Amino acid sequence: MPASGPASAKTKYSFTDDYSEGAHPDVLNALLLSNNTQEVGYGRDTYSETARDLIRRHLGRDDVGIFFVPSGTSANAISIAACLRPHEAVIACSSGHIVTRETGAVEASGHKIINVAPVNGKMTPETLTKALDDNWHFPHMAKPRLVYISNATEIGTIYTKAELTALKRICEANGLLLFADGARIGAALTSSINDLTLRDMLELTDIFWIGGTKNGALLGEAIVVKDTKLAEDFEFFVKQRGSLLAKGRIMGVQFAELFREDDCLYFNLARRANLAAEKLSRSITGAGYELNAKTETNQVFAVLPLTLVQALQQDFSFYVWEKYGEFAVVRLLTTWATDLSQLERFNQMVLSWKPDAEQKTL
Amino acid sequence: MPASGPASAKTKYSFTDDYSEGAHPDVLNALLLSNNTQEVGYGRDTYSETARDLIRRHLGRDDVGIFFVPSGTSANAISIAACLRPHEAVIACSSGHIVTRETGAVEASGHKIINVAPVNGKMTPETLTKALDDNWHFPHMAKPRLVYISNATEIGTIYTKAELTALKRICEANGLLLFADGARIGAALTSSINDLTLRDMLELTDIFWIGGTKNGALLGEAIVVKDTKLAEDFEFFVKQRGSLLAKGRIMGVQFAELFREDDCLYFNLARRANLAAEKLSRSITGAGYELNAKTETNQVFAVLPLTLVQALQQDFSFYVWEKYGEFAVVRLLTTWATDLSQLERFNQMVLSWKPDAEQKTL
Amino acid sequence: MPASGPASAKTKYSFTDDYSEGAHPDVLNALLLSNNTQEVGYGRDTYSETARDLIRRHLGRDDVGIFFVPSGTSANAISIAACLRPHEAVIACSSGHIVTRETGAVEASGHKIINVAPVNGKMTPETLTKALDDNWHFPHMAKPRLVYISNATEIGTIYTKAELTALKRICEANGLLLFADGARIGAALTSSINDLTLRDMLELTDIFWIGGTKNGALLGEAIVVKDTKLAEDFEFFVKQRGSLLAKGRIMGVQFAELFREDDCLYFNLARRANLAAEKLSRSITGAGYELNAKTETNQVFAVLPLTLVQALQQDFSFYVWEKYGEFAVVRLLTTWATDLSQLERFNQMVLSWKPDAEQKTL
Amino acid sequence: MPASGPASAKTKYSFTDDYSEGAHPDVLNALLLSNNTQEVGYGRDTYSETARDLIRRHLGRDDVGIFFVPSGTSANAISIAACLRPHEAVIACSSGHIVTRETGAVEASGHKIINVAPVNGKMTPETLTKALDDNWHFPHMAKPRLVYISNATEIGTIYTKAELTALKRICEANGLLLFADGARIGAALTSSINDLTLRDMLELTDIFWIGGTKNGALLGEAIVVKDTKLAEDFEFFVKQRGSLLAKGRIMGVQFAELFREDDCLYFNLARRANLAAEKLSRSITGAGYELNAKTETNQVFAVLPLTLVQALQQDFSFYVWEKYGEFAVVRLLTTWATDLSQLERFNQMVLSWKPDAEQKTL
Repeated sequence: MPASGPASAKTKYSFTDDYSEGAHPDVLNALLLSNNTQEVGYGRDTYSETARDLIRRHLGRDDVGIFFVPSGTSANAISIAACLRPHEAVIACSSGHIVTRETGAVEASGHKIINVAPVNGKMTPETLTKALDDNWHFPHMAKPRLVYISNATEIGTIYTKAELTALKRICEANGLLLFADGARIGAALTSSINDLTLRDMLELTDIFWIGGTKNGALLGEAIVVKDTKLAEDFEFFVKQRGSLLAKGRIMGVQFAELFREDDCLYFNLARRANLAAEKLSRSITGAGYELNAKTETNQVFAVLPLTLVQALQQDFSFYVWEKYGEFAVVRLLTTWATDLSQLERFNQMVLSWKPDAEQKTL
Repeated sequence: MPASGPASAKTKYSFTDDYSEGAHPDVLNALLLSNNTQEVGYGRDTYSETARDLIRRHLGRDDVGIFFVPSGTSANAISIAACLRPHEAVIACSSGHIVTRETGAVEASGHKIINVAPVNGKMTPETLTKALDDNWHFPHMAKPRLVYISNATEIGTIYTKAELTALKRICEANGLLLFADGARIGAALTSSINDLTLRDMLELTDIFWIGGTKNGALLGEAIVVKDTKLAEDFEFFVKQRGSLLAKGRIMGVQFAELFREDDCLYFNLARRANLAAEKLSRSITGAGYELNAKTETNQVFAVLPLTLVQALQQDFSFYVWEKYGEFAVVRLLTTWATDLSQLERFNQMVLSWKPDAEQKTL
Repeated sequence: MPASGPASAKTKYSFTDDYSEGAHPDVLNALLLSNNTQEVGYGRDTYSETARDLIRRHLGRDDVGIFFVPSGTSANAISIAACLRPHEAVIACSSGHIVTRETGAVEASGHKIINVAPVNGKMTPETLTKALDDNWHFPHMAKPRLVYISNATEIGTIYTKAELTALKRICEANGLLLFADGARIGAALTSSINDLTLRDMLELTDIFWIGGTKNGALLGEAIVVKDTKLAEDFEFFVKQRGSLLAKGRIMGVQFAELFREDDCLYFNLARRANLAAEKLSRSITGAGYELNAKTETNQVFAVLPLTLVQALQQDFSFYVWEKYGEFAVVRLLTTWATDLSQLERFNQMVLSWKPDAEQKTL
Repeated sequence: MPASGPASAKTKYSFTDDYSEGAHPDVLNALLLSNNTQEVGYGRDTYSETARDLIRRHLGRDDVGIFFVPSGTSANAISIAACLRPHEAVIACSSGHIVTRETGAVEASGHKIINVAPVNGKMTPETLTKALDDNWHFPHMAKPRLVYISNATEIGTIYTKAELTALKRICEANGLLLFADGARIGAALTSSINDLTLRDMLELTDIFWIGGTKNGALLGEAIVVKDTKLAEDFEFFVKQRGSLLAKGRIMGVQFAELFREDDCLYFNLARRANLAAEKLSRSITGAGYELNAKTETNQVFAVLPLTLVQALQQDFSFYVWEKYGEFAVVRLLTTWATDLSQLERFNQMVLSWKPDAEQKTL
């Protein structure tokens, strides 16, 4: 929970989030090249068809539905609403994006979210099982039906293949769908400790999405729907929520560019973001400060002295997440576009920080 | 959270809930006497008009809207939906009836419930303030707008005038509406430690309801709407939710009977329920067992040895709320209709319980 | 569309609707006799179980779900919401109760109603087919999924077996569910021109309900759910909508009484209502006035001179449906409780009406 | 209602819609130039601020809320949901986009749409008044609260200042909000017969939007909210519906470009589209064929012989709206990007058409 937001003007270099920049130049160039042809509307254009085929190739299956929507909130709300009947509930970590950052969009479509406490940002078999045990009272409690997880999580940690498999097994045993928010799935699957592939994500979930906005695109997320029957009607939901863009080509063009090659831009950009975070993280721990969460992807949660935080805020913007006495947890995000010279400057300030000297000048 | 439900057949005497019996004989008689006249439908009948006037007299104000609905879930869901716009959220204790026992009805009308931990079953100024602090992130979080409390609470405790006033002050300072679920408001306002009146409830909340189902009626709850503008359109909501009964007279007749006198049947029945609970509670503590919550109204939460629980279950039905090793928390409810000879028999079993003897016979 | 409502006080004898009276004496007596036992709550009581079994016997099948709810609006809204996914629409006559008299309850649960023009109050194969043709534009139009009809219709006409079969065939061919509002199913199935049975209703629809409120009960409608999977979760919907009464016994007791015998009270009461309407209808046509709709059940739509209408309004209350110059369409409803001496007095006024004499006195 | 859709491949020149092309080159160039800076997310970027200021200057008021959303369906659904309480209904022409082409999005947010028959594509004072008269039955009917119109309408006609003023007066007299869908407001306000300005639109409605998608942008619509209190919370709704883009800059950049000058690109592009339609329209009437609706903006509805339609379909794609015997109504749309040489080729085919010759070859 951020205790204070970023400054509104971006005169300082920003580690605030992973959507401060525009698109990757290759993506923008593709938009430019595609601009002058006429295309059929509402996602039936040739670019979107190509993008869907390319993503399916990466997934190793040609029978899954791929649907492009303009934002993560719409990806989550649409997917969840499409899966559930009115009496069915979602189980999610209390730190989940759908719980804390989407203005109650899931509830706005009528569904209760049963909150569980995250463990290292993640749902565990134990917490999931307990949530089921606590919500069996038919018909007085909404019926648990879908488990929401994020990979990477909201604090940048990732699920291992074993962890995801364990959750999937419980879901299968209890008639639950497993849904993964992939706003930062690129960062997750290119983490140095990751052992999951995009194909695993498909196999081990029922529905998930691949986030473009936070990884090189101007906008757009690709929802992957494995169930054929659900996929058949899925565009109704996308359209009803205002997310079926008339010029759907603008998402098609971008995703086609991001997934064109086997060694594709999408994962290369994510890898670059993770490397920047690793640099930041090492430098902070190297300077003797602690992390609040292990740096596994492109988010760094560092515990820094308030005075250092204030000094950094002169030149950089970022979230101050929480304050503890003389210390604060700050959140620093990196992307494919992170300016490494700015990152270096940040690291230097951290390394050279002398609390006494500062206190004199303040 | 009950670990096991009651037996389905009621051959045993039941302390399971406060809706096992029919109506109080006076209430049923009133229904009988009113049966043969023709009345205008949908709550415009003379009985409903009389009932509204009688309740208004008890409230000391003749300008409030009174609306009868058939169930507590409809009273809660309708009141909350009528007060909120789509982006607005409810703050409630995680033990609240709307959270745990209404199948997500509030979420089904589109609204998020922000859960806070109960203190002795109640919302406190501290937990409320923290909930506000944690949910300010415009526009990414649903906007807190209504505070839900129950009096009596789900564990039978009650709000003092000072406690309710403190909550109301915070609500006023933060643009929040205060809503009280009065499923057991009769029990609350006749508790031996209560210092609130029905008029106080009106003054210190924005909207609340008076439960008939659990206190002498066959069905029916009376929602009290203070805001004139809200009251003006309120019947639209009642009708839209299927709660505007064509023969609204059946609720009007019952509430007219319950509130006819100044020293009215409604509070007399509640007082009787509380006295029965007090007897039960004293007998249990007298036998050396502990309570899990203070007995302030018609609910007794007792910590009894599992063996005693099993013995009692031969003759009585009640909820086993939770188990702790060799002990269980059981919930016992009393009503105006509680058979005092059965209660006496229950108390005798508790008092005369000898664990060793029992273990031999089992 | 009524041009003016009934007077609010019922000092005049009323033909306004079929819910002006209380319950049939046998039904009320059953409530009285059942009042003192303890019963399990929320519809698991012995009376509700008995009522469900009795209704199943009348339906000739013991595997259908039967669910009691307190009002017609809740029966319609719950049934429809339980059947549909968010993108699915209802097809209904523009005269349908869900279209004109339920405050948008179907839309409030998220579903579009595609209106078709009624033919003699009914949906026809032609109008249904046209509605399908007009709404195919995937994914830009909500997907037709459920057809709503009322039997008897809102103007008192009924479906023949051939008509209902024809609709059912189209529904089956197009993946549509057929749902029948049975607020006045008793009147329909006892009409002198009816050739449908309760078993036919079950066979020729997917879901329908049997109205108690307008045919002898204080409140209560019994929803019949044929699909086993839907029935399994149906109570979630009933509870979520606030329609699962804690003292469910009050509906169980009444339906058990209404359906106890093979030649049951339910249909006998409906037959009585129809006979009264027939008398009224014959007398009106005998006096030389026209009907606006054929009198097939307990509703009479008569075209009377305005001056006669005004004279009748001195002694009787009823709806003035529409005005045409010097004439008005009035709606007269009869029930099992209709006072035949009042009906006779009404008929005499109609028969003896002399417009000239009246115009002098006015 | 289209009787057949466009071919999926765009090898033919398309007059199918006004969203087949990408963005106007100036708009795309602006995106390119803005790509490399860091900007605050979620619409707080400097481009969006500039765009809002520019639009406000065109509106002549600096106190109105401007909100960018990615699609017309989201503009409509969000605006309507933000204005209404759960029991309130919309009045709209049965030809309205919200009725026929948005998958029930308004109903999905809980609101009934009361349909009226369009007159020349438009709502009239008479039809509006009748809709109010037909829907007064408190509390059994949803309460009319918002009137939806489109300018230009779905058939390309426009509202005059007198017509819009007349509707606004009825709205004011009846407590109704007037909402205008401006998907094609550029075309409307630059029609040769138009007498309304953007400032008039603001004055004569309560809320309306300015469509970017169909007039030069890649995506984006700008909702103009006059009511300060509504504007204050409006972003909650935008976010809850998944329409608050993280990189809100992509809509800000485009609208800033479109509204930069007093004689701005936005209206110049619309004027160009209208001129192309005029050419098409004149050529068709010049060849002796009739129009199904007067060509007032960028839509041409022509009644052509089926054989001519089939011949045209060899080279061009467009909607065949309806068939009447040997004739069909076709819909032809033009835009700022319409290729005038293709348009000329189309016109030549129409002018040189010889039905006899054709019939021989077929």
